[in-house]
Amino acid sequence: MSHTVKEKPKLLARARRIKGQLEGIERALEAELGCADVLHQIVAARGALTGLMREVIEGHIHSHIANPQDPGDGTREQGAAELIAILRSYMK
Amino acid sequence: MSHTVKEKPKLLARARRIKGQLEGIERALEAELGCADVLHQIVAARGALTGLMREVIEGHIHSHIANPQDPGDGTREQGAAELIAILRSYMK
Amino acid sequence: MSHTVKEKPKLLARARRIKGQLEGIERALEAELGCADVLHQIVAARGALTGLMREVIEGHIHSHIANPQDPGDGTREQGAAELIAILRSYMK
Amino acid sequence: MSHTVKEKPKLLARARRIKGQLEGIERALEAELGCADVLHQIVAARGALTGLMREVIEGHIHSHIANPQDPGDGTREQGAAELIAILRSYMK
Repeated sequence: MSHTVKEKPKLLARARRIKGQLEGIERALEAELGCADVLHQIVAARGALTGLMREVIEGHIHSHIANPQDPGDGTREQGAAELIAILRSYMK
Repeated sequence: MSHTVKEKPKLLARARRIKGQLEGIERALEAELGCADVLHQIVAARGALTGLMREVIEGHIHSHIANPQDPGDGTREQGAAELIAILRSYMK
Repeated sequence: MSHTVKEKPKLLARARRIKGQLEGIERALEAELGCADVLHQIVAARGALTGLMREVIEGHIHSHIANPQDPGDGTREQGAAELIAILRSYMK
Repeated sequence: MSHTVKEKPKLLARARRIKGQLEGIERALEAELGCADVLHQIVAARGALTGLMREVIEGHIHSHIANPQDPGDGTREQGAAELIAILRSYMK
């Protein structure tokens, strides 16, 4: 079972909280709040998404590279390749 | 009128699209998709938030520092101070 | 006089310190230190470069957009355009 | 043998090139070039450091987590813990 399944309730709760932050940004734009307010909310939501990404990446490192349930047949190499692809799209 | 008011429809559309990306992340977690899929969606949503942030910052630079409607009385200094506070919270 | 001229000694000292951090990375690679050590030094140097970038950007906002010495003739618009170009190359 | 040893010549060459970029920033400050020039050089050096970091991280994933030379005795767990510590200090 993948870590995103084992930790599903916690990850879902985080994703929903970030969706709520996006709804806050919508409301701030609708209410025509000052743009500094809007910007601070955007920076906060982005930080929360970074935190969610880091949590999923940490689970990936443990469950798909270091300690896969079924460690045979190139499982670890596949997990490593997936992580590297993610890091390349993220680390610019 | 602030740039976030003038560009309200466009900014709202972007914020809603990102909220939709968060709903996609929720659905991916609910459906127990592989974590590489989830991660790519998180990286994409984060990139979209960065784009929204950059757009609001660019409007801020034009409307609150370079060409404020009412350029008297420390308006530009306030706009500069707000931008610097945002950049400090973002550039780590 | 530009802010990078007024603050030249301070900025030069920071740039030289970061060059020293790069020399530390070279020495760590030469001495075949563990890669976790090397990585921590790289992350630290990158953080220091981010700090230097932020300092020059803050000076730019003050001296070339909010309070230019010669505020006529599109000076502020040019300063704003330069800052936006930098932010676009940095915020990805 | 660690990947930073196997790839030592390549990594050293990259570190030296980035040190050269820092020397270019010093010269730009000394010569009192415009701050937009200085900023573009800083952004470029920071991007090069990010590239070096990514390369060392990729080697770490392969050599210390997925395929360690001596895979017994918690080697992979240690490699995973080191990577996670680095990512936490970097992903903010």
